[in-house]
Amino acid sequence: MRTDWQISRLVNGGYVDMADALREDLEKIIPDPDRIITGEISEEYTKYAHGSLKGSADAVVFPISREEVSGIMKYAWDRKIPVTPRGANTNLTGSTVPLEGGIVLDLSHMNRILEIDEDTLTATVEPGVLLGDFQETVESKGLFYPPDPGEKKASLGGNISTNAGGMRAVKYGVTRDFVRGLEVVFADGSIAELGGKTVKDASGLSLKNLLIGSEGTLAVITKAILRLLPKPECSVSAIAAFDDIQAGIRNVIRILHANTQPTALEFAERSVAAIGENYTGTKFPFPDAGAYILMTFDGDPESVKRNLEKTKDVVFANGAEGFQPLSAEKAAEVWTVRGAFCTAVEAVSEQVPVDIVVPIDRTDKFVKFADQLAEETGLLMATYGHAGDGNIHINIARGNLDDETWKETLSKVLWAVYNETADLSGLPSGEHGIGLTKQKFYRKHADPNAVSVMRSVKDALDKKHILNDHKSYLA
Amino acid sequence: MRTDWQISRLVNGGYVDMADALREDLEKIIPDPDRIITGEISEEYTKYAHGSLKGSADAVVFPISREEVSGIMKYAWDRKIPVTPRGANTNLTGSTVPLEGGIVLDLSHMNRILEIDEDTLTATVEPGVLLGDFQETVESKGLFYPPDPGEKKASLGGNISTNAGGMRAVKYGVTRDFVRGLEVVFADGSIAELGGKTVKDASGLSLKNLLIGSEGTLAVITKAILRLLPKPECSVSAIAAFDDIQAGIRNVIRILHANTQPTALEFAERSVAAIGENYTGTKFPFPDAGAYILMTFDGDPESVKRNLEKTKDVVFANGAEGFQPLSAEKAAEVWTVRGAFCTAVEAVSEQVPVDIVVPIDRTDKFVKFADQLAEETGLLMATYGHAGDGNIHINIARGNLDDETWKETLSKVLWAVYNETADLSGLPSGEHGIGLTKQKFYRKHADPNAVSVMRSVKDALDKKHILNDHKSYLA
Repeated sequence: MRTDWQISRLVNGGYVDMADALREDLEKIIPDPDRIITGEISEEYTKYAHGSLKGSADAVVFPISREEVSGIMKYAWDRKIPVTPRGANTNLTGSTVPLEGGIVLDLSHMNRILEIDEDTLTATVEPGVLLGDFQETVESKGLFYPPDPGEKKASLGGNISTNAGGMRAVKYGVTRDFVRGLEVVFADGSIAELGGKTVKDASGLSLKNLLIGSEGTLAVITKAILRLLPKPECSVSAIAAFDDIQAGIRNVIRILHANTQPTALEFAERSVAAIGENYTGTKFPFPDAGAYILMTFDGDPESVKRNLEKTKDVVFANGAEGFQPLSAEKAAEVWTVRGAFCTAVEAVSEQVPVDIVVPIDRTDKFVKFADQLAEETGLLMATYGHAGDGNIHINIARGNLDDETWKETLSKVLWAVYNETADLSGLPSGEHGIGLTKQKFYRKHADPNAVSVMRSVKDALDKKHILNDHKSYLA
Repeated sequence: MRTDWQISRLVNGGYVDMADALREDLEKIIPDPDRIITGEISEEYTKYAHGSLKGSADAVVFPISREEVSGIMKYAWDRKIPVTPRGANTNLTGSTVPLEGGIVLDLSHMNRILEIDEDTLTATVEPGVLLGDFQETVESKGLFYPPDPGEKKASLGGNISTNAGGMRAVKYGVTRDFVRGLEVVFADGSIAELGGKTVKDASGLSLKNLLIGSEGTLAVITKAILRLLPKPECSVSAIAAFDDIQAGIRNVIRILHANTQPTALEFAERSVAAIGENYTGTKFPFPDAGAYILMTFDGDPESVKRNLEKTKDVVFANGAEGFQPLSAEKAAEVWTVRGAFCTAVEAVSEQVPVDIVVPIDRTDKFVKFADQLAEETGLLMATYGHAGDGNIHINIARGNLDDETWKETLSKVLWAVYNETADLSGLPSGEHGIGLTKQKFYRKHADPNAVSVMRSVKDALDKKHILNDHKSYLA
């Protein structure tokens, strides 16, 4: 833990209990004592939800305005106190673990949807709004927010900080593509507004785009203006069944080339589908198939129908064993199974999530490699993901391995996975970010000159390195 | 002009002719003497094509590889020699004017399309490839590069450096949305590869997105991996006619809300259409209308037909005087007229181009304001643009004004335009960039904390300020 920071009361002389002194200082910035925790800090704030990494904290604060966030940052900046921002703490990489003590800046109380502006097709939100709540509100007004990461209880601020992707990226793009403007507080407490409600922007450096995906290392997001679309008239899902996953994935490029504009294009092997089926108690169609491609098409009913027809022709011409458009009810079931893969593995075993991305024509090579690796190691490795984006998840399950064997095996498997990813010209994260858990793999393969420039950017924006330091590119 | 830089031979002692010494040094980096100009440098390299601002240069070099670009940058970095990169020099803001002498880095010889990869739907290009050539090559293979700025002789490197937009942005987005990867040379000569052929990327800071739109102030682009789409099966344009422009623009939001997915959505008043008609010798339909909305729909023929029908219903329900889908031949004519607005004004008078962007629900307010301003000042101000993006161009024509009156009037008009833009929560550039010509307007209304951070980023990436310094946010 870092020890080079001081609470002002200690500096000003006289022995005071450190927690008391810190609280007294923080209460000058955050007037409601219920929005400050000092003293013993519960694990809820020092761990992340999906892993065992643990930090420590001297205080947790729950600001409700940009002024309070700015006040906290100024206070921390003057005293070099580490600050770790967090939204809903649903990240999968340890990015919210407070490594160095100091202040945990919890933005979950800033959770208002400030405006839904139908005339400019934008929404203005605070960072703590949860994705699922936002999607629901927006859709109730006939509008649509396409980014759709699996975790609906993630905060929008967190989604922006990792440039979260999700199932609908193949047609609509990722979170970055739906951020029109940001209000942020920099490490020194200065506030800035970047972008706005305009569609285009060629006015100065795009700090907005620099901050998207920066995992809380450069600034704290206090407001976002998000782009909306009119809600598609209808949305129909379908499933295609194949003998094996290689045959399935080879169809993906063909489906894209046929200009069928799928909204989602996911793949799963039978063994992985079975894990989800057992967990949810519902079934995929075509139980005897070796692998599946799940897809959704949205738009007006006639386009959707035509794209389904086109896709059916493509897959049957290229080795499909079955193809079935799904009723709304059946589609909900199938997507529930798909959505449960990660949780289902987690329910039976400790697991480590992987989120690599490769060029779409190399997805099949990567999956073949992952399957072989699972066979060689005897581990359960549930491999599935966003076939249309080349964004592949693996949940590597520990099973019954003892501590030492697990640690050793996992290390070998992860190195093999990230080395193979690099060999296929891929990247270690498509949508989860690097956080803490992927740093060594990222650093091994990242362009050293690029990383060096990223560090210069950190030095420029946070020269005291107080803001979520040591995460992501800052290994 | 800056005088704090030295050619190595002068430093090493002995009087040598400066141009000769510089040439000798440069020939060590660029082995072909025909790709180096020293001595008297023609205005071709010290001015930009669309304005009178003029700089000076000691050398122009035409590298053909990233190694040569890196060599030039290292040489310049060691000696603090200013470097001004340029592509096709078609910018509208003076961003390629070499303000401080030094080296003009002309990338026009790096003009190869290195690969069109149908399996990953990407193209890898050198920065000097011209947009029009690229579009043609891509389309000949059944693929599609949606960004479509008016200037087809612009270079792709330049398009990336200004985050160029164009007519099809309303459906497909701008240049930023089609850059998957960049190879760049930083100010000190170090080379980095950012992004790649992958669709998603949440791996470290997005330097790629920081560099897009940075107007050559942070790095030199030596290669780009661009995203392609399958070519839409068909594309049909239509024109809607209105009594006045306000009625026309009010329809834009309605057309978007009706989920008709227009590829392009442009507006023009009759007076502006007439300028284009006279210049091209072809006519818009509905010659008696006061204003027009031009639009294109692409996709499969049935979707296009349905979107045309929907749009027709929308506009006739909201005050249109006429609506007409256009044959391919007539569409080509109409778009030629639209494309000629700027050139047509330029042909009769010196003109200053404006490229502001406002939230789409304020386009009508801005156009009303611009029309009143034209009336008050008696100037010809051709106002038209991308209605679907709120991105409005004005060509302010000098007419017969003498130097002093023109200078004075133009200054008043431009301040009024940019102040009004800011009042409407808009930005001074939607797609041209800030360059030199818009700096004071940008600085007046930009968030000072944001600009301060942009300058820190410049210091971090180019602490010697040799790379296209004093442009854009660096006033």
